[in-house]
Amino acid sequence: MKLATLKDGSRDGQLAVVSRDLSTAHFATGIATRAQQLLDDWNFISPQLEDLYTTLNGGKARHAFPFDPRACMAPLPRAYQWADGSAYPSHVRRVLHARGAEVPAHLLEVPLMYQGGSDDFLGPCDDAVFADPAWGIDLESELAVVAGDLSMGAAPDAALEAVRLVMLANDWSLRSLVPAEVASGFGFLQSKPATAFAPVAVTPDELGPAWRGGRVHLKVSTQVNGQRLGDVEGGAGMHFHFGQLLAHLARTRNVRAGAIVGGGTVSHDDEGQGVSCLAERRALEMVHDGHAASAWLQSGDLVRIEVFDAGGQSVFGAIEQRVRSTEDPDPVPAATAAIDGKAG
Amino acid sequence: MKLATLKDGSRDGQLAVVSRDLSTAHFATGIATRAQQLLDDWNFISPQLEDLYTTLNGGKARHAFPFDPRACMAPLPRAYQWADGSAYPSHVRRVLHARGAEVPAHLLEVPLMYQGGSDDFLGPCDDAVFADPAWGIDLESELAVVAGDLSMGAAPDAALEAVRLVMLANDWSLRSLVPAEVASGFGFLQSKPATAFAPVAVTPDELGPAWRGGRVHLKVSTQVNGQRLGDVEGGAGMHFHFGQLLAHLARTRNVRAGAIVGGGTVSHDDEGQGVSCLAERRALEMVHDGHAASAWLQSGDLVRIEVFDAGGQSVFGAIEQRVRSTEDPDPVPAATAAIDGKAG
Repeated sequence: MKLATLKDGSRDGQLAVVSRDLSTAHFATGIATRAQQLLDDWNFISPQLEDLYTTLNGGKARHAFPFDPRACMAPLPRAYQWADGSAYPSHVRRVLHARGAEVPAHLLEVPLMYQGGSDDFLGPCDDAVFADPAWGIDLESELAVVAGDLSMGAAPDAALEAVRLVMLANDWSLRSLVPAEVASGFGFLQSKPATAFAPVAVTPDELGPAWRGGRVHLKVSTQVNGQRLGDVEGGAGMHFHFGQLLAHLARTRNVRAGAIVGGGTVSHDDEGQGVSCLAERRALEMVHDGHAASAWLQSGDLVRIEVFDAGGQSVFGAIEQRVRSTEDPDPVPAATAAIDGKAG
Repeated sequence: MKLATLKDGSRDGQLAVVSRDLSTAHFATGIATRAQQLLDDWNFISPQLEDLYTTLNGGKARHAFPFDPRACMAPLPRAYQWADGSAYPSHVRRVLHARGAEVPAHLLEVPLMYQGGSDDFLGPCDDAVFADPAWGIDLESELAVVAGDLSMGAAPDAALEAVRLVMLANDWSLRSLVPAEVASGFGFLQSKPATAFAPVAVTPDELGPAWRGGRVHLKVSTQVNGQRLGDVEGGAGMHFHFGQLLAHLARTRNVRAGAIVGGGTVSHDDEGQGVSCLAERRALEMVHDGHAASAWLQSGDLVRIEVFDAGGQSVFGAIEQRVRSTEDPDPVPAATAAIDGKAG
């Protein structure tokens, strides 16, 4: 099934079921009001939502309404945990190479993972607001899962069974703030502002054969100001699968229902697929041209991230966010010109 | 006022008001059932709880019952954010010195802070369970605050005004897992298992004159197996106050109601006060004796952390946790012998 959380002025929003083709939605009223309720009590609540989903897809839900991604919060608007792995070695190698940093010796044996902030996620169409363009504003297109309860020490296979939902994320990053935080050893904090999520979270069965081996075998498409940044295979370049990432997180502590674990910036060694963040594009420019031509994002830039299934259907709906400065008094109007020198 | 969350089998427990002397409690029924509700709607709910608190302290609450810390979860059993600073330079200097690591150049200008897991906090008397004693099990006695909503870019003074509650924490640490995670640059993850909190959270006014300059000017007492580890002044050695720590966290993102920010292991240059973690004790042993004699914690060890006010009243109640191995079939019996060689 497909789920979304609609804005209603509250902190947690209103849980809704969304039709497979993303055309209609139906509030989960009478079943659950908030997404976290579903995760807290999955076995009781999810079958009821599945029934509603079937009815909605059959066009027989009595109070269905047109689905509008702009009315969405993140599917889980705030979470008790957001731990983001970095499971694509080509991303790590490119970015570290560009920073002049050493690639970890155990890159292929021990997952890299940081603990992120989870108290204030952005909706798919919310502006991304930053105070200073000198922070090096970058997007990161990522796949993520929401887990059920997982006991400390869980094995990767058992952890994979705990995957409840799959999501698409934009893990905003402030590249200029990264080096100092990495050097401190305490990890990313200010360099990882609020993460955004695509409007719809889906159960793994929605992905059909594209969900195999704990990975999402679909391409993640990223555009900046309408220009293609990449269409990158989400499964092929992912070294650790989501069960392995969850098991890494659960090695020394229990992981509780609703924890979100990300796979890191989607990446692949095949440069023809493009990239899923500007840091990688700049890294490749440095390798090929000797200098990074692409600028970081600026106020007014528009980022779009989407995943399509084999039939061309958008799986999670699109993340479509405008970068905005805290200096801007109001949301800026839609940009019209392509900006080749920046991200095209 | 003083607040606690009592175990009722649910994930969030049941919110209760606790009398100033910690002798009695009263469910907040009819006002709020969960602590997060209070934080989400502070201005509406807190005056009602204050009224109940006054009635309870006057001995006139009709359904009061004896307060039992063993029935407590963490005051906020799960939170949307737990960011832990390291605001005591003497702690940082001692621990890094012992690790042979360099002290950050900007230690006194930029707070060190890591993002912790917040989905599964431990109650004050819950066993702390670890799979492998070779992980280097250590306690860390810390003071922490719970914040209300804070806008991105908030100044330290404004951030300090957003402090809603003060808590006492045991930030369990696995010292042997630290070096690899620090070296990765991604920060602590497996090395920081579930954090425990003292039974009672208090509003800053409960601290009276001991709450000044954004710091808690009371001693934090730590014992291991009944032996004093330290009675360390919580305010004097704290370089950054809680408003500064909150402002650091809010520099690039909004901080939402219920976020917990810790001050890091309480420490002071005066060695006579003792220490608040074994890592510091071992560091001092290395300096004075050439080797670290104190072992890390083992299954069966008992940790007690408490803060007393000027009148000798326990402010937050005690954290009293037994270390347990996942190998132990059942909670181990109370240790009786003092273990001088280990932590005495």
